[in-house]
Parts: sequence; C-alpha cells; structure tokens
Amino acid sequence: VRIAVVGTGLVGGSIGLALRGLGHDVVGFDGDSNRAARAKELGAIDSVAASLEAAARNADLVFVAVPVSAIAGVATAALDAGARLVTDVGSVKGPVVAEVVHARPDAAARFLGGHPMAGSEQDGVDGARADLFVGATWVLTPTAATDQAAFAELRALLRAMHAEVVSVTPADHDELVALVSHVPQIASSTLMDVAVTREAEHQALLRLAAGGFRDMTRIAASHPGIWLDILTSNRDAVLAALDAYLDALHGARELVAAGDRDALEKLLARARKGRRNLPVGAPVVGELVELHVPVLDRPGVLAEVTTLAGRLGVNIEDFSIAHSAEGPAGVLKMVVARSQADAFEQGLHELGYLASRAELS
Amino acid sequence: VRIAVVGTGLVGGSIGLALRGLGHDVVGFDGDSNRAARAKELGAIDSVAASLEAAARNADLVFVAVPVSAIAGVATAALDAGARLVTDVGSVKGPVVAEVVHARPDAAARFLGGHPMAGSEQDGVDGARADLFVGATWVLTPTAATDQAAFAELRALLRAMHAEVVSVTPADHDELVALVSHVPQIASSTLMDVAVTREAEHQALLRLAAGGFRDMTRIAASHPGIWLDILTSNRDAVLAALDAYLDALHGARELVAAGDRDALEKLLARARKGRRNLPVGAPVVGELVELHVPVLDRPGVLAEVTTLAGRLGVNIEDFSIAHSAEGPAGVLKMVVARSQADAFEQGLHELGYLASRAELS
Repeated sequence: VRIAVVGTGLVGGSIGLALRGLGHDVVGFDGDSNRAARAKELGAIDSVAASLEAAARNADLVFVAVPVSAIAGVATAALDAGARLVTDVGSVKGPVVAEVVHARPDAAARFLGGHPMAGSEQDGVDGARADLFVGATWVLTPTAATDQAAFAELRALLRAMHAEVVSVTPADHDELVALVSHVPQIASSTLMDVAVTREAEHQALLRLAAGGFRDMTRIAASHPGIWLDILTSNRDAVLAALDAYLDALHGARELVAAGDRDALEKLLARARKGRRNLPVGAPVVGELVELHVPVLDRPGVLAEVTTLAGRLGVNIEDFSIAHSAEGPAGVLKMVVARSQADAFEQGLHELGYLASRAELS
Repeated sequence: VRIAVVGTGLVGGSIGLALRGLGHDVVGFDGDSNRAARAKELGAIDSVAASLEAAARNADLVFVAVPVSAIAGVATAALDAGARLVTDVGSVKGPVVAEVVHARPDAAARFLGGHPMAGSEQDGVDGARADLFVGATWVLTPTAATDQAAFAELRALLRAMHAEVVSVTPADHDELVALVSHVPQIASSTLMDVAVTREAEHQALLRLAAGGFRDMTRIAASHPGIWLDILTSNRDAVLAALDAYLDALHGARELVAAGDRDALEKLLARARKGRRNLPVGAPVVGELVELHVPVLDRPGVLAEVTTLAGRLGVNIEDFSIAHSAEGPAGVLKMVVARSQADAFEQGLHELGYLASRAELS
C-alpha cells in the first residue's frame, strides 16, 4: 500500500516512523517545507512530495495530521486528488467529519475520522517516536457512509502499529474526549492560573505545591495553540462536560461546607476505586472466540456493529468481512474475548443482528 | 538530643529513618503496638516506648505524626510529660495550633506547628523512606509565643535532613495549602467521580483517557481517611479557595461559550508560563550574604522575621540567634541569597528592623 502523511509534526512524524518500521513506503508533505525536510532527515518519511495533491494522488491511504481547524480543507483536497482512503488524527471528530461530508458528499465513503489518544509534551517532529502508539487507544469514527473494506484495512494497519482500536460515533467521541481530555485541560490551566495569581501575594505559595499539585497542573504546560482550535471546534460538548464537572464540584463544595463526612467519604471512595480501576495499557483478553454475524451489505452496518462494541467496552481483537459471492450479503467475522462475547451478542441481538460462535480457525 | 516520634506510619517512620541516618537516637510510640514493632523492625526507630508519656518524658524534641484530628491531644500529652519542644506534621495548622495553645497556654512556647510537603501514595511504615524529605519543603508555623532557641534547633535539624524550611503563619499555611493541596484533591476526586458515572453509559470512556487525565486523577487514588480530617479541619480555607477556583472555572466556561480565543489564549499562556516556572527541588541560591538584625528579646520577633521571608519567597539558608550578654537583646543572623537580600532588607525595614550585611564568616 502507498501511504501519505500530510503534516509532519509530532503525530504525523510518529505515524511515519511506525509505518516505515513495518516496511511501508511513506511519502510526506507539510505546508512548512523545512518541517517536511526535517521529517525526512529523521527517517519519518521516505520522500517529500512536491504538493499536497502529489502526496495524495494514487495514495491508498492518507493520514491528515494537521491542526483541527485545517483538517477539513486538507482532507477535501486529498479526496479530490484521488486518495483511496483519507483519515485524520484530530482531537475533535463531529464537526470535522460533518465538514468533509458536507463539502464532498460523494466521497464520504473514503473519509474516516480518527484520533490516536497519544501525544507528548514535546512539540514537533523532533519529538516523534516509532512507539508513540504502542498500547495507545486509537479511536475510529465510522459512519453509515464508511467503506467497509477500507475500514478493515485501516484497522488492521493500526493494529499492526500495536494501537488498540476503538470505534465510536463522531458525536460520542466528542462527548467522551470533552470529559476525559478537554475539561481536564481547562481544569488544569485554571488551577494553575489561580495559583499564579495568588503567588503574587504570597511568594511561598508555590513552594508548598507538592506532588499532587504538580500532577494536576502538568498539562497546563501544554502549548495553547492546539487547545484554542479544540475548545472552539468542540465547544458544545466541552460546555456540556464542563457544566457536569462544575455541578459536581459545587456538590462537593456543599459537602465540605456542611461537614458531611459520610457523603464526602463516599465521593472520595468512589473516585479512589475508579482511579485504581483505570485501564492501563492493552486490555486483558484471555480466551478468545470468533463471532460470525451475517449482514446485508447496506450502509451503516459496520458503524453500528463496531460502535456498539465501543459503547459496551468490547475489545475487537480481529475484524474481517467475508462477502458472499451470491448477492449483497456477507459475514462480519470478529474475534473477541470469551468473557465479553455474551454481552456483545446480546447487544447485537437488540440491534437485529444474529451472531453465531465459530471455532477459531 | 533525645528525639521521640509518636505515630510511626509513613511520615513518622520516614522521620525516624532520616534522623537515625544522622546518628540520632529515636524512640517511637504508636497507639497501634504492631505498627510500632514494625517500625522498629524496619529500623525506623531505635526502641519502642511503653507509652506516649514515656516517649515524651525527657525528650528534647517530639514529632507528632498522627492524623490531624488526633494531633492536639497527643501534643498536649507530650507537653504535659515534659518534652522540651513538640512539633507536628499535620496538613492543617491554624486549628491545631489554636487548640494546643488554648489547652496549654503556659506551654505555647514549646509547641511549634510543622508540615512537611512530602508524602507518597503508599500508606504505612512500609512505605517509609529515609530520603522522603530531601529537597521537600517543610513548613514551620512559628507564633509570637514560639521559643526562639528551640525554633533554631528544629530548623537546623530539618535542614540536616535536607528539607527546605519555609516559615509562614498558621493561617497563611492553611490558606496556601487549601489552594495547592486540598482543592486539587477535591478537583481530582470529583473529576474521577464524574468520569466513573459517565463510564456506566459508555464503556469506551476510560479507554479514551490519555496521560493528561491520568495525571489529573492520580491523587484521586489517595486514601479517603486522611482527607476527611483535613477537609473538616480546614473547612473555611478550603471553601474560600474552592470558591476562587469555581469562580475561575466559571470564567473559563464563559470564554469557551463566547468563543473568545484571545482571552482563552491569554489564560492558557499565563498558566503555561506559571507551570513552566514551578519551582523544582531546592531553590537556586547563588552567592550568599549574611544579614545581621539587632532585635529585642521580645515575643513575636522570630515569627515576624521568618514569616516575612516566607511571604517574600526569601530562602533562609542559615539561621542563628546571638544573645547579648548585657541585656534582653540579641542579633538574628540569617544567610540568604545576595539576589534576594535587597527585597528582604526592605521588608524588614518596613517592619521596623534595621538589617546590616556582614562578611560571611
């Protein structure tokens, strides 16, 4: 497969390094030609394309790794140039996917939103690492329009990069990251800002900041640039999640004010349990089973089935589509943990699918 | 000097290990005799006292390392037993100091509040480390009643343990830690709790939690027990700091709602700068000068001068008191960075003290 990376910063460069490590040929392009040259120098890409169009033309797969506000424009141009599949790595999905589909409705099958949940405090291609995505969750946001074969191919490629692939709808993605990424950024920066303001009155303040404060404010050191785009693009979801957080904080304030030790203890204990159960690295899978799901080859099947797995927390270890020779039907084959198979089958049944178990071949 | 540690958990055990490493003899006592025995087994104390009174009797210095709600009772008993100086390691100072002074007004000179800003996610003496306080800030909260010689001795001992000693008033301490420790704990636990609640609806949620969320919620894994005491004892300061944080968060929310990129960028940039300037480890001192400050031997001088340094962020490298042979006067000798000496002299002048510089002997 011929792969292009547009935007050769930290994430684009890391994708290039990982793919080249797997033996793929990677062409790169960046609006800043110095950055593209640096990516080549660091071995993140094999060659630098003369233009975005040249990079995308004849490409089987284009990774768009540019700031959120620029994704739709770049993706549209890559689709126009004839790329077979275009995906992106932006932190916001709903508005980006909608903008691309609105601009090129006929090419909607060839655009698949993505978001690797990995990054680094470092900026730029010099911080790129071939193992940035190892064990990281890589979100894909298939829609009814998504081409099934292209989805399966991209998914397999990301798995080869040792990423854990989770499918959710674009809207769900934006709601979820608002809570676990965007609101934490606001909470961290705001805490640091309040402390900085008070520091002016009392110079000892920050000398009293121990490890907890350091942890809480680590991401406040992030570059503001990317966050302006994210907070603007994902405004509605951020406001909803921030309001939920503010409500909960006001609730906690009232418990402190009332000296309600029982309720405070319950809150702290729930949070402690949740934090100690926070998933680390790849999910523990155990024994595997293969589910076969006969499907009609109609739009939306793929998105329905894979985002159901995402919502239920079912990890799809392997995924393929066997098309029937006789008509517009086929079979989705999915390998999942035996411990999660019942819940997944039940959910599929509720959506009108009938799954059967097969021996692992 | 004969030193006693009452409460042989993580912090008490670490104090014992550090002091024994400096060659001091340390007697320990714990309400839980198994824990005291374990502390001896781990080498954190030389011997186990039969009672709190036995540990404190004849002690030059008693470290009270018990939960906040138990400090005043233990400290009072240690004062009654005749300890020359009693200090504690509690996370709240104003109410604790007030309670001890109220209970034993005549012994107020012999109680000095303290709070080492170091800890660990581990509980208990098995997590104790001789180097827990190396480079950590250790707050002392002298008052007008504090005995000057005892203060200087304790300060020197903590410096020998490689802690950075900062003096602030008990009330200032509580306000400052409310902002950099207690509110972060509430913010972290509440964020985790909101996420846990949402996770029930969408199992993929926590798989999307990348490094920032992990950092923000690390302290949510803390044991609830100590926090109930802290949040109850320091209620007023916590509420004030939490309200300031809530106000700031509401302000940030309005910036997001209005799509005010300029103001958002200013907020994020201020926070970034503050985080990048967060002091790490011991302050960089550079060239030193010695200040001599003639003082009358009246109550309050010591607290005034040292908490002024704390407020101004002046790091006192060395501290001693030379008493005059001829009357109730003496000279405070303080070694500080040359770069901070002007600001400190100016502050001292405003309080009515006249400092002069001496060659470092």
